Amino acid sequence: MTKKGTEKMWQELLQFPMGKRTAKPRTTGITMIIDKGLGLGETRDLLNLAGDYIDFLKLGFGTAALYYNEVLEEKIHLVTSHGVDIYPGGTFLEVAVLQDKLRQYLAMARDFGFTAVEISDGTIDMSLQLRAQAISTACEMGFKVLSEVGKKDPDNEFEIKDIIRLVNHDLSCGACHVIVEGRESGKAVGLYDREGNLIMSELEELVYSVRDASKLIWEAPLKEQQQELIIRFGPNVNMGNINPHEVLALEALRAGLRADTLKAVLQRT
Amino acid sequence: MTKKGTEKMWQELLQFPMGKRTAKPRTTGITMIIDKGLGLGETRDLLNLAGDYIDFLKLGFGTAALYYNEVLEEKIHLVTSHGVDIYPGGTFLEVAVLQDKLRQYLAMARDFGFTAVEISDGTIDMSLQLRAQAISTACEMGFKVLSEVGKKDPDNEFEIKDIIRLVNHDLSCGACHVIVEGRESGKAVGLYDREGNLIMSELEELVYSVRDASKLIWEAPLKEQQQELIIRFGPNVNMGNINPHEVLALEALRAGLRADTLKAVLQRT
Amino acid sequence: MTKKGTEKMWQELLQFPMGKRTAKPRTTGITMIIDKGLGLGETRDLLNLAGDYIDFLKLGFGTAALYYNEVLEEKIHLVTSHGVDIYPGGTFLEVAVLQDKLRQYLAMARDFGFTAVEISDGTIDMSLQLRAQAISTACEMGFKVLSEVGKKDPDNEFEIKDIIRLVNHDLSCGACHVIVEGRESGKAVGLYDREGNLIMSELEELVYSVRDASKLIWEAPLKEQQQELIIRFGPNVNMGNINPHEVLALEALRAGLRADTLKAVLQRT
Repeated sequence: MTKKGTEKMWQELLQFPMGKRTAKPRTTGITMIIDKGLGLGETRDLLNLAGDYIDFLKLGFGTAALYYNEVLEEKIHLVTSHGVDIYPGGTFLEVAVLQDKLRQYLAMARDFGFTAVEISDGTIDMSLQLRAQAISTACEMGFKVLSEVGKKDPDNEFEIKDIIRLVNHDLSCGACHVIVEGRESGKAVGLYDREGNLIMSELEELVYSVRDASKLIWEAPLKEQQQELIIRFGPNVNMGNINPHEVLALEALRAGLRADTLKAVLQRT
Repeated sequence: MTKKGTEKMWQELLQFPMGKRTAKPRTTGITMIIDKGLGLGETRDLLNLAGDYIDFLKLGFGTAALYYNEVLEEKIHLVTSHGVDIYPGGTFLEVAVLQDKLRQYLAMARDFGFTAVEISDGTIDMSLQLRAQAISTACEMGFKVLSEVGKKDPDNEFEIKDIIRLVNHDLSCGACHVIVEGRESGKAVGLYDREGNLIMSELEELVYSVRDASKLIWEAPLKEQQQELIIRFGPNVNMGNINPHEVLALEALRAGLRADTLKAVLQRT
Repeated sequence: MTKKGTEKMWQELLQFPMGKRTAKPRTTGITMIIDKGLGLGETRDLLNLAGDYIDFLKLGFGTAALYYNEVLEEKIHLVTSHGVDIYPGGTFLEVAVLQDKLRQYLAMARDFGFTAVEISDGTIDMSLQLRAQAISTACEMGFKVLSEVGKKDPDNEFEIKDIIRLVNHDLSCGACHVIVEGRESGKAVGLYDREGNLIMSELEELVYSVRDASKLIWEAPLKEQQQELIIRFGPNVNMGNINPHEVLALEALRAGLRADTLKAVLQRT
């Protein structure tokens, strides 16, 4: 992109309170958005506004199967030409796994031009062996692989020790990132309690026990969650399931240009 | 529309877990969206993305009275040219009834190009006779008529028996669908309790007692409501007051390509 | 604007229940929207749809610092050419105050073409003297000045008497409006309790004690708050932090073309 950001102009004038953000292509400070059905115009508009602040775009759930052909192809082209990776939601892949069509599913996703895939078992059961095979197959086919840990069902909780083992397993199989499940709601799932608060003790255990915590992407759809993660891990924490209309607001939060993180900076000093 | 959906391509590969969806023009499996102020570009974008999944577009409340002339005309043309019916919100018609201008109101709506109207008394009182007359007048004028049952005020609840009588009355007067009130919030209204949960006993009584339950459209703005209705009635249940940005996500829910309905399918088998 | 509204056509037919709305440029009946990241296309679309119903557009928080140069300039031009004032969020200015760069900040905002600024101390501490100076400097530089009263932190509540004093202070310094803080959430802040209900006793005290209550703008992001304010103060109450996608719905509420204000009118008569 040849566009010039105002960021530099303002930064010559003012220091951004939370400190320096990584630039694209970045390996930390990642923002993944969940797209529940952005039209082509809306997508173009968003990328022209905030393309530098988006690393991954997920076509939520199985919505990728519901597009007109031409629209999907143009959308994928549009997104990737802005240096943003795009992938279909994990539930869609789970349907393929259920029907024993994983390889065909991946081939079709590649033909459409998707650059990444998510390997998850939020709804189905998947053996560790199949999971390893899915990750390495997708890697071989040239995809960036994001795996996901955590069940979507609040009554079917993992033990934190199992999550840690799974994170390490997936990273060793070739996943470039591991997503910590937060769903679209951010409540009563994974490391969030029923009110959507982070369960800090489990989070700390997770972060200290995995091979490389900088590869975790936290699904954090709610502003309070984003804020807590930024205050805990700094402006370059990886976050996912961000509402596309909140990308710039999130970026302001990362920069300390929004009340809640600014306040945290002030309290420290 | 000559666009080719990816749906078929994917369906050659995978079975959609919830089974077959009806196609447009459809009489069941209807999706009605509530438009609280989509611009022309946004509307075009949405129809290009998901026109096949939208049957009715309601200009919410009395917003139809607040458009620029040119914008309203172009919007109505745009919507109908995608095979989607469009109508002004019921509250607007209630204002006309209050001021004894129903016929003039309908004439003006027809002149603008609206193809449907909603006959409701969510806020005002309307005799059964006037209601019958309103429905048949609108039918004669060439509108598709959607009537609505249920009060907007939680302290002014209908008895379920009265609702059943009203549904049968409206259908016999010529209404093509009867909408079960859920408002924009989906809470403490109609068949929803204060948390937005469906009151199942009343729902079952309603469904078993009306002349033709397939003509009911459930206002179901919240995802949990949509999910419950799909699990109870299948992918082709009629739903209304859908947020325009949720149309594709709802369609994924109908198809079983989203965790919550997929899980329900898995539990059955 | 030369567009013709349908409003007049409908008003020849029907009386709008809540009575007459002021027209632009207006000094009461103001609607201020919070823009958390509208793209250029979305902004154009919104202004073409509802430009007559928007008086101020705030680029929320510090998002103004995160635009591409060309996009920001075009956006500001677009907004002002529709007769809408535009300004960067107050938190951004607070960062400038913290770093003792207020004057440079204002100069840069003026160079970009912003027509208004917000003077607030929602997160930082600011002496009354500095506040007075900031307001009058901004006025001298040609900005419309909106000051804001109320802390963003629920544990750091002002006394209502202090708020009254501050409102009078700011008006006498040259502020054209004083905003009563409601944040983006509208809960547990300013005159809103934890559920977002207006604390009526404080509101009444405020309204009766300030020099000119018609200059207050109430941040009212939630529909119930908008509704209460309209019922209490009439259709031309000033409201802020309105979601851009709710502008037309708010206008329907102001006009009495939406169930909740229509009901209030009916109950009075």
